[in-house]
Amino acid sequence: MHWRTWRHLTKLDPDRRNDEALVKAVVDSGTDAIMVSGTQNVTAEKARKLIEMLSDYDIPVVLEPSDPGGVVYDVDYIFVPSVVNAGKVDWVIGKHAEWIMRHYSNVEDFLSIMDRVVLEAYIVLNPDSAVGRVTGARTDLSPEEVASYAITAEQLFSFPIIYIEYSGTYGDPEVVKEVRKKISRAMIIYGGGIVDREKSLEMSKYAHAIVVGNVIYERGIDAFLSTII
Amino acid sequence: MHWRTWRHLTKLDPDRRNDEALVKAVVDSGTDAIMVSGTQNVTAEKARKLIEMLSDYDIPVVLEPSDPGGVVYDVDYIFVPSVVNAGKVDWVIGKHAEWIMRHYSNVEDFLSIMDRVVLEAYIVLNPDSAVGRVTGARTDLSPEEVASYAITAEQLFSFPIIYIEYSGTYGDPEVVKEVRKKISRAMIIYGGGIVDREKSLEMSKYAHAIVVGNVIYERGIDAFLSTII
Repeated sequence: MHWRTWRHLTKLDPDRRNDEALVKAVVDSGTDAIMVSGTQNVTAEKARKLIEMLSDYDIPVVLEPSDPGGVVYDVDYIFVPSVVNAGKVDWVIGKHAEWIMRHYSNVEDFLSIMDRVVLEAYIVLNPDSAVGRVTGARTDLSPEEVASYAITAEQLFSFPIIYIEYSGTYGDPEVVKEVRKKISRAMIIYGGGIVDREKSLEMSKYAHAIVVGNVIYERGIDAFLSTII
Repeated sequence: MHWRTWRHLTKLDPDRRNDEALVKAVVDSGTDAIMVSGTQNVTAEKARKLIEMLSDYDIPVVLEPSDPGGVVYDVDYIFVPSVVNAGKVDWVIGKHAEWIMRHYSNVEDFLSIMDRVVLEAYIVLNPDSAVGRVTGARTDLSPEEVASYAITAEQLFSFPIIYIEYSGTYGDPEVVKEVRKKISRAMIIYGGGIVDREKSLEMSKYAHAIVVGNVIYERGIDAFLSTII
Protein backbone atom coordinates (compact mmCIF):
# COMPACT_ATOMS: atom_id res chain seq x y z
CA MET A 1 0.00 0.00 0.00
CA HIS A 2 1.69 3.19 -1.18
CA TRP A 3 1.78 6.05 1.33
CA ARG A 4 -0.28 8.11 -1.10
CA THR A 5 -3.27 5.82 -0.46
CA TRP A 6 -3.18 6.01 3.33
CA ARG A 7 -6.35 7.46 4.87
CA HIS A 8 -5.75 7.22 8.63
CA LEU A 9 -2.41 7.80 10.27
CA THR A 10 -1.61 7.47 13.93
CA LYS A 11 0.99 9.73 15.42
CA LEU A 12 2.76 8.28 18.42
CA ASP A 13 4.81 10.55 20.63
CA PRO A 14 8.05 8.95 21.86
CA ASP A 15 7.92 11.31 24.83
CA ARG A 16 4.72 9.72 26.16
CA ARG A 17 4.20 6.34 27.76
CA ASN A 18 3.88 3.77 24.96
CA ASP A 19 3.50 0.35 26.56
CA GLU A 20 3.12 -2.96 24.70
CA ALA A 21 -0.68 -3.03 25.12
CA LEU A 22 -1.09 0.48 23.67
CA VAL A 23 1.19 -0.22 20.72
CA LYS A 24 -0.60 -3.50 19.94
CA ALA A 25 -4.05 -1.88 20.16
CA VAL A 26 -2.96 0.89 17.75
CA VAL A 27 -1.38 -1.50 15.27
CA ASP A 28 -4.49 -3.74 15.30
CA SER A 29 -6.89 -0.79 15.02
CA GLY A 30 -7.03 -0.57 11.24
CA THR A 31 -4.90 2.59 11.02
CA ASP A 32 -2.78 2.63 7.86
CA ALA A 33 0.57 3.68 9.27
CA ILE A 34 2.32 4.92 12.38
CA MET A 35 4.10 8.25 12.43
CA VAL A 36 6.74 8.63 15.09
CA SER A 37 6.85 12.30 15.80
CA GLY A 38 6.85 14.69 18.69
CA THR A 39 8.04 17.84 20.27
CA GLN A 40 11.54 19.20 20.68
CA ASN A 41 12.14 17.09 23.78
CA VAL A 42 12.21 13.93 21.74
CA THR A 43 15.63 12.41 21.71
CA ALA A 44 16.72 9.97 19.07
CA GLU A 45 16.97 7.37 21.88
CA LYS A 46 13.29 7.60 22.74
CA ALA A 47 12.28 7.49 19.08
CA ARG A 48 14.52 4.47 18.53
CA LYS A 49 12.92 2.61 21.45
CA LEU A 50 9.43 3.19 20.06
CA ILE A 51 10.49 2.24 16.53
CA GLU A 52 11.94 -0.99 17.91
CA MET A 53 8.61 -1.85 19.55
CA LEU A 54 6.89 -1.23 16.21
CA SER A 55 9.33 -3.44 14.31
CA ASP A 56 7.53 -6.50 15.70
CA TYR A 57 4.59 -5.65 13.45
CA ASP A 58 3.99 -5.33 9.71
CA ILE A 59 2.55 -1.83 9.80
CA PRO A 60 4.47 0.92 7.93
CA VAL A 61 6.46 3.20 10.21
CA VAL A 62 7.20 6.81 9.31
CA LEU A 63 9.62 9.00 11.19
CA GLU A 64 8.80 12.69 11.15
CA PRO A 65 11.88 14.47 12.48
CA SER A 66 11.64 17.97 13.92
CA ASP A 67 15.38 18.51 14.01
CA PRO A 68 18.43 17.23 12.09
CA GLY A 69 19.68 15.67 15.33
CA GLY A 70 16.59 13.53 15.89
CA VAL A 71 16.66 11.41 12.77
CA VAL A 72 16.48 7.64 13.08
CA TYR A 73 16.94 5.71 9.86
CA ASP A 74 15.52 2.27 10.59
CA VAL A 75 12.01 3.11 9.35
CA ASP A 76 9.99 2.67 6.17
CA TYR A 77 9.78 6.37 5.40
CA ILE A 78 11.07 9.68 6.64
CA PHE A 79 8.53 12.45 6.16
CA VAL A 80 10.44 15.72 6.36
CA PRO A 81 8.38 18.80 7.24
CA SER A 82 9.03 22.20 5.69
CA VAL A 83 6.83 24.81 7.37
CA VAL A 84 5.87 26.92 4.38
CA ASN A 85 4.11 29.59 6.47
CA ALA A 86 6.89 29.80 9.06
CA GLY A 87 8.17 33.19 10.13
CA LYS A 88 11.73 31.90 10.36
CA VAL A 89 13.66 30.49 7.42
CA ASP A 90 15.22 27.69 9.46
CA TRP A 91 11.92 25.85 9.45
CA VAL A 92 11.36 26.30 5.73
CA ILE A 93 14.76 25.13 4.47
CA GLY A 94 17.59 26.03 6.88
CA LYS A 95 17.46 22.93 9.09
CA HIS A 96 17.29 20.78 5.99
CA ALA A 97 20.59 22.19 4.76
CA GLU A 98 22.02 21.60 8.27
CA TRP A 99 20.96 17.98 7.99
CA ILE A 100 22.85 17.57 4.71
CA MET A 101 25.87 19.41 6.19
CA ARG A 102 26.01 16.94 9.11
CA HIS A 103 26.43 14.10 6.61
CA TYR A 104 28.63 15.96 4.15
CA SER A 105 31.72 13.80 4.56
CA ASN A 106 29.83 10.77 3.19
CA VAL A 107 26.96 12.52 1.48
CA GLU A 108 26.82 10.22 -1.56
CA ASP A 109 26.10 7.25 0.73
CA PHE A 110 23.75 9.33 2.83
CA LEU A 111 21.67 10.28 -0.21
CA SER A 112 20.79 6.61 -0.76
CA ILE A 113 18.02 7.14 1.84
CA MET A 114 16.33 9.69 -0.41
CA ASP A 115 14.01 7.12 -2.00
CA ARG A 116 12.41 6.81 1.46
CA VAL A 117 12.30 10.55 2.14
CA VAL A 118 9.13 12.50 1.38
CA LEU A 119 8.91 16.25 1.79
CA GLU A 120 5.82 17.69 3.48
CA ALA A 121 4.62 21.27 3.08
CA TYR A 122 3.38 21.99 6.60
CA ILE A 123 0.88 24.81 6.99
CA VAL A 124 0.78 25.45 10.73
CA LEU A 125 -2.44 27.13 11.86
CA ASN A 126 -2.63 26.98 15.66
CA PRO A 127 -0.53 29.88 16.99
CA ASP A 128 -0.65 28.49 20.54
CA SER A 129 0.81 25.10 19.65
CA ALA A 130 4.47 24.33 20.26
CA VAL A 131 5.11 24.12 16.52
CA GLY A 132 3.25 27.41 15.95
CA ARG A 133 5.36 29.23 18.52
CA VAL A 134 8.72 27.70 17.63
CA THR A 135 8.37 28.31 13.90
CA GLY A 136 6.80 31.76 14.27
CA ALA A 137 4.08 30.60 11.89
CA ARG A 138 1.80 33.16 10.23
CA THR A 139 -1.49 31.69 11.36
CA ASP A 140 -3.84 34.63 10.80
CA LEU A 141 -4.82 33.44 7.34
CA SER A 142 -8.15 33.25 5.52
CA PRO A 143 -9.12 29.95 3.85
CA GLU A 144 -8.08 31.53 0.52
CA GLU A 145 -4.67 32.50 1.92
CA VAL A 146 -4.10 29.01 3.28
CA ALA A 147 -5.09 27.60 -0.11
CA SER A 148 -2.66 30.04 -1.78
CA TYR A 149 0.16 28.58 0.30
CA ALA A 150 -1.05 25.10 -0.65
CA ILE A 151 -1.18 25.94 -4.37
CA THR A 152 2.30 27.48 -4.15
CA ALA A 153 3.60 24.34 -2.45
CA GLU A 154 2.02 22.04 -5.01
CA GLN A 155 2.34 23.96 -8.28
CA LEU A 156 5.54 25.95 -7.86
CA PHE A 157 7.51 23.87 -5.38
CA SER A 158 6.15 20.40 -6.34
CA PHE A 159 5.68 19.22 -2.75
CA PRO A 160 4.03 15.77 -2.80
CA ILE A 161 2.24 16.37 0.54
CA ILE A 162 0.35 19.36 1.97
CA TYR A 163 -0.03 18.95 5.74
CA ILE A 164 -2.62 21.18 7.41
CA GLU A 165 -1.58 21.22 11.04
CA TYR A 166 -3.80 22.51 13.84
CA SER A 167 -1.80 20.59 16.45
CA GLY A 168 -3.74 20.37 19.73
CA THR A 169 -6.95 21.99 18.53
CA TYR A 170 -9.65 21.11 16.03
CA GLY A 171 -9.33 23.21 12.89
CA ASP A 172 -11.71 24.96 10.56
CA PRO A 173 -13.20 22.47 8.07
CA GLU A 174 -13.76 25.36 5.62
CA VAL A 175 -9.99 25.80 5.40
CA VAL A 176 -9.42 22.15 4.53
CA LYS A 177 -12.36 22.21 2.11
CA GLU A 178 -10.91 25.24 0.29
CA VAL A 179 -7.48 23.58 0.03
CA ARG A 180 -9.02 20.38 -1.33
CA LYS A 181 -10.88 22.36 -4.01
CA LYS A 182 -7.65 23.90 -5.30
CA ILE A 183 -5.20 20.99 -5.04
CA SER A 184 -4.98 18.50 -7.87
CA ARG A 185 -1.94 16.27 -7.33
CA ALA A 186 -0.60 16.55 -3.80
CA MET A 187 -1.81 14.43 -0.90
CA ILE A 188 -3.61 16.54 1.70
CA ILE A 189 -3.06 15.46 5.29
CA TYR A 190 -5.00 17.02 8.16
CA GLY A 191 -3.92 16.88 11.79
CA GLY A 192 -5.30 18.39 15.00
CA GLY A 193 -8.03 17.74 17.54
CA ILE A 194 -9.54 14.61 16.02
CA VAL A 195 -10.92 12.97 19.15
CA ASP A 196 -14.09 11.25 17.95
CA ARG A 197 -15.84 9.68 14.98
CA GLU A 198 -17.72 12.84 14.03
CA LYS A 199 -14.56 14.93 13.66
CA SER A 200 -12.80 12.10 11.88
CA LEU A 201 -15.65 11.84 9.36
CA GLU A 202 -15.80 15.61 8.87
CA MET A 203 -12.11 16.15 8.12
CA SER A 204 -11.92 12.97 6.04
CA LYS A 205 -14.40 14.54 3.62
CA TYR A 206 -11.76 17.11 2.63
CA ALA A 207 -8.36 15.71 3.53
CA HIS A 208 -7.01 12.61 1.83
CA ALA A 209 -5.70 11.42 5.17
CA ILE A 210 -6.18 12.40 8.78
CA VAL A 211 -3.68 12.11 11.59
CA VAL A 212 -4.84 11.06 15.04
CA GLY A 213 -2.54 11.21 18.00
CA ASN A 214 -3.06 12.94 21.31
CA VAL A 215 -6.47 11.34 21.88
CA ILE A 216 -4.74 8.04 22.66
CA TYR A 217 -2.86 9.58 25.56
CA GLU A 218 -5.59 11.96 26.69
CA ARG A 219 -8.81 9.96 26.32
CA GLY A 220 -7.64 6.39 25.98
CA ILE A 221 -7.71 3.69 23.37
CA ASP A 222 -11.50 3.50 22.95
CA ALA A 223 -11.73 7.15 21.98
CA PHE A 224 -8.88 6.53 19.53
CA LEU A 225 -10.67 3.52 18.01
CA SER A 226 -13.75 5.67 17.33
CA THR A 227 -11.68 7.75 14.88
CA ILE A 228 -11.09 4.73 12.61
CA ILE A 229 -13.75 5.09 9.95
CA MET B 1 16.46 23.84 -27.74
CA HIS B 2 15.25 23.03 -24.24
CA TRP B 3 16.25 25.51 -21.51
CA ARG B 4 18.16 22.72 -19.81
CA THR B 5 20.69 22.74 -22.68
CA TRP B 6 21.40 26.48 -22.63
CA ARG B 7 25.04 27.34 -21.90
CA HIS B 8 25.15 31.13 -22.16
CA LEU B 9 22.38 33.44 -20.99
CA THR B 10 22.28 37.17 -21.30
CA LYS B 11 20.53 39.17 -18.63
CA LEU B 12 19.14 42.46 -19.82
CA ASP B 13 18.06 45.03 -17.28
CA PRO B 14 14.87 46.89 -18.27
CA ASP B 15 16.05 49.76 -16.09
CA ARG B 16 19.07 50.45 -18.34
CA ARG B 17 19.18 51.90 -21.82
CA ASN B 18 18.44 49.09 -24.28
CA ASP B 19 18.41 50.59 -27.78
CA GLU B 20 17.75 48.70 -31.01
CA ALA B 21 21.46 48.34 -31.85
CA LEU B 22 22.27 46.85 -28.43
CA VAL B 23 19.36 44.40 -28.57
CA LYS B 24 20.26 43.28 -32.09
CA ALA B 25 23.93 42.80 -31.19
CA VAL B 26 22.99 40.66 -28.18
CA VAL B 27 20.50 38.54 -30.11
CA ASP B 28 23.03 37.96 -32.91
CA SER B 29 25.87 37.20 -30.50
CA GLY B 30 25.30 33.47 -30.15
CA THR B 31 23.86 33.67 -26.64
CA ASP B 32 21.21 30.99 -26.04
CA ALA B 33 18.49 33.05 -24.40
CA ILE B 34 17.69 36.46 -22.97
CA MET B 35 16.66 36.86 -19.35
CA VAL B 36 14.73 39.99 -18.55
CA SER B 37 15.52 40.70 -14.97
CA GLY B 38 16.56 43.55 -12.77
CA THR B 39 16.38 45.32 -9.48
CA GLN B 40 13.38 46.43 -7.49
CA ASN B 41 12.98 49.59 -9.56
CA VAL B 42 11.88 47.61 -12.56
CA THR B 43 8.28 48.27 -13.36
CA ALA B 44 6.20 45.91 -15.44
CA GLU B 45 6.00 48.71 -18.04
CA LYS B 46 9.76 48.81 -18.59
CA ALA B 47 9.96 45.04 -18.75
CA ARG B 48 7.10 44.94 -21.22
CA LYS B 49 8.82 47.46 -23.49
CA LEU B 50 12.02 45.40 -23.57
CA ILE B 51 10.12 42.17 -24.14
CA GLU B 52 8.34 43.80 -27.06
CA MET B 53 11.68 44.75 -28.64
CA LEU B 54 12.80 41.12 -28.23
CA SER B 55 9.63 39.76 -29.83
CA ASP B 56 11.02 40.77 -33.25
CA TYR B 57 13.58 37.96 -32.91
CA ASP B 58 13.47 34.19 -32.57
CA ILE B 59 15.58 33.99 -29.44
CA PRO B 60 13.94 32.53 -26.30
CA VAL B 61 12.94 35.15 -23.74
CA VAL B 62 12.79 34.42 -20.02
CA LEU B 63 11.28 36.76 -17.47
CA GLU B 64 12.80 36.54 -14.02
CA PRO B 65 10.48 38.47 -11.72
CA SER B 66 11.71 39.84 -8.40
CA ASP B 67 8.24 40.69 -7.13
CA PRO B 68 4.67 39.41 -7.70
CA GLY B 69 3.80 42.84 -9.10
CA GLY B 70 6.44 42.77 -11.84
CA VAL B 71 5.33 39.72 -13.77
CA VAL B 72 4.80 40.00 -17.52
CA TYR B 73 3.32 36.93 -19.19
CA ASP B 74 4.14 37.36 -22.87
CA VAL B 75 7.42 35.43 -22.69
CA ASP B 76 8.64 31.91 -23.39
CA TYR B 77 9.45 31.11 -19.79
CA ILE B 78 9.13 32.59 -16.34
CA PHE B 79 12.02 31.59 -14.11
CA VAL B 80 10.91 32.18 -10.53
CA PRO B 81 13.68 32.61 -7.96
CA SER B 82 13.44 31.24 -4.44
CA VAL B 83 16.41 32.43 -2.39
CA VAL B 84 17.17 29.31 -0.38
CA ASN B 85 19.81 30.99 1.80
CA ALA B 86 17.69 34.10 2.44
CA GLY B 87 17.37 35.41 5.98
CA LYS B 88 13.74 36.35 5.41
CA VAL B 89 11.01 33.86 4.53
CA ASP B 90 9.34 36.18 2.02
CA TRP B 91 12.15 35.50 -0.44
CA VAL B 92 12.04 31.75 0.04
CA ILE B 93 8.30 31.19 -0.39
CA GLY B 94 6.23 34.13 0.96
CA LYS B 95 6.18 36.27 -2.19
CA HIS B 96 5.29 33.21 -4.22
CA ALA B 97 2.16 32.66 -2.13
CA GLU B 98 1.36 36.38 -2.55
CA TRP B 99 1.61 35.91 -6.30
CA ILE B 100 -0.96 33.08 -6.20
CA MET B 101 -3.18 35.14 -3.86
CA ARG B 102 -3.24 38.03 -6.36
CA HIS B 103 -4.71 35.67 -8.96
CA TYR B 104 -6.93 33.71 -6.60
CA SER B 105 -10.26 34.73 -8.13
CA ASN B 106 -9.32 33.01 -11.41
CA VAL B 107 -6.56 30.76 -10.18
CA GLU B 108 -7.51 27.75 -12.34
CA ASP B 109 -6.96 29.85 -15.49
CA PHE B 110 -3.86 31.43 -13.99
CA LEU B 111 -2.28 28.03 -13.37
CA SER B 112 -2.29 27.32 -17.11
CA ILE B 113 0.99 29.31 -17.26
CA MET B 114 2.69 26.75 -15.00
CA ASP B 115 4.07 24.74 -17.92
CA ARG B 116 6.24 27.78 -18.67
CA VAL B 117 7.23 28.42 -15.06
CA VAL B 118 10.52 27.03 -13.74
CA LEU B 119 11.59 27.39 -10.13
CA GLU B 120 15.17 28.43 -9.41
CA ALA B 121 16.96 27.78 -6.11
CA TYR B 122 18.99 30.97 -5.80
CA ILE B 123 22.03 30.86 -3.56
CA VAL B 124 23.01 34.50 -3.09
CA LEU B 125 26.66 34.95 -2.13
CA ASN B 126 27.56 38.63 -2.46
CA PRO B 127 26.40 40.36 0.74
CA ASP B 128 26.93 43.81 -0.79
CA SER B 129 24.67 43.24 -3.78
CA ALA B 130 21.11 44.59 -3.84
CA VAL B 131 19.74 41.04 -3.76
CA GLY B 132 22.06 40.12 -0.90
CA ARG B 133 20.92 43.05 1.21
CA VAL B 134 17.20 42.86 0.41
CA THR B 135 16.92 39.13 1.08
CA GLY B 136 19.20 39.17 4.14
CA ALA B 137 21.10 36.30 2.56
CA ARG B 138 23.49 34.21 4.68
CA THR B 139 26.56 34.65 2.55
CA ASP B 140 29.30 33.63 4.98
CA LEU B 141 29.32 30.04 3.76
CA SER B 142 32.11 27.58 2.97
CA PRO B 143 32.05 25.75 -0.38
CA GLU B 144 30.70 22.71 1.50
CA GLU B 145 27.91 24.75 3.08
CA VAL B 146 26.93 26.22 -0.28
CA ALA B 147 26.91 22.70 -1.72
CA SER B 148 24.75 21.55 1.22
CA TYR B 149 22.16 24.16 0.26
CA ALA B 150 22.43 22.99 -3.36
CA ILE B 151 21.99 19.32 -2.41
CA THR B 152 19.01 20.25 -0.21
CA ALA B 153 17.47 22.18 -3.09
CA GLU B 154 18.00 19.34 -5.55
CA GLN B 155 17.45 16.20 -3.48
CA LEU B 156 14.86 17.25 -0.92
CA PHE B 157 13.03 20.09 -2.67
CA SER B 158 13.44 18.88 -6.28
CA PHE B 159 14.37 22.29 -7.69
CA PRO B 160 15.24 21.92 -11.38
CA ILE B 161 17.75 24.82 -11.29
CA ILE B 162 20.45 25.84 -8.79
CA TYR B 163 21.47 29.45 -9.43
CA ILE B 164 24.73 30.56 -7.82
CA GLU B 165 24.47 34.33 -7.71
CA TYR B 166 27.42 36.62 -7.02
CA SER B 167 25.61 39.59 -8.59
CA GLY B 168 28.07 42.40 -9.33
CA THR B 169 31.24 40.58 -8.33
CA TYR B 170 33.18 37.59 -9.63
CA GLY B 171 32.67 34.57 -7.38
CA ASP B 172 34.84 31.80 -6.04
CA PRO B 173 35.28 29.08 -8.68
CA GLU B 174 35.91 26.57 -5.86
CA VAL B 175 32.35 27.11 -4.68
CA VAL B 176 30.88 26.37 -8.10
CA LYS B 177 33.23 23.41 -8.53
CA GLU B 178 32.10 21.92 -5.22
CA VAL B 179 28.43 22.36 -6.13
CA ARG B 180 28.98 20.70 -9.51
CA LYS B 181 30.63 17.70 -7.85
CA LYS B 182 27.60 17.10 -5.65
CA ILE B 183 24.71 17.86 -8.02
CA SER B 184 23.43 15.13 -10.29
CA ARG B 185 20.18 16.26 -11.91
CA ALA B 186 19.64 20.00 -11.50
CA MET B 187 20.95 22.59 -13.95
CA ILE B 188 23.62 24.78 -12.34
CA ILE B 189 23.59 28.41 -13.42
CA TYR B 190 26.33 30.82 -12.40
CA GLY B 191 25.98 34.59 -12.47
CA GLY B 192 28.24 37.46 -11.40
CA GLY B 193 31.23 39.39 -12.67
CA ILE B 194 31.76 37.62 -15.97
CA VAL B 195 33.35 40.39 -18.00
CA ASP B 196 35.81 38.59 -20.24
CA ARG B 197 36.57 35.33 -21.99
CA GLU B 198 38.82 34.01 -19.24
CA LYS B 199 36.15 34.29 -16.55
CA SER B 200 33.54 32.90 -18.91
CA LEU B 201 35.72 29.86 -19.62
CA GLU B 202 36.54 29.34 -15.95
CA MET B 203 32.96 29.35 -14.65
CA SER B 204 31.72 27.36 -17.65
CA LYS B 205 33.93 24.49 -16.51
CA TYR B 206 31.74 24.05 -13.43
CA ALA B 207 28.36 25.62 -14.16
CA HIS B 208 26.11 24.22 -16.87
CA ALA B 209 25.28 27.75 -17.91
CA ILE B 210 26.64 31.19 -17.17
CA VAL B 211 24.75 34.45 -17.08
CA VAL B 212 26.32 37.59 -18.46
CA GLY B 213 24.72 40.96 -17.99
CA ASN B 214 26.24 44.10 -16.54
CA VAL B 215 29.29 43.97 -18.79
CA ILE B 216 27.11 45.09 -21.71
CA TYR B 217 26.21 48.31 -19.95
CA GLU B 218 29.52 48.86 -18.20
CA ARG B 219 32.14 47.85 -20.80
CA GLY B 220 30.22 47.76 -24.05
CA ILE B 221 29.21 45.19 -26.59
CA ASP B 222 32.72 44.02 -27.53
CA ALA B 223 33.49 43.03 -23.97
CA PHE B 224 30.16 41.21 -23.90
CA LEU B 225 30.97 39.35 -27.14
CA SER B 226 34.23 38.07 -25.63
CA THR B 227 32.17 36.08 -23.09
CA ILE B 228 30.56 33.98 -25.82
CA ILE B 229 32.65 30.82 -25.89
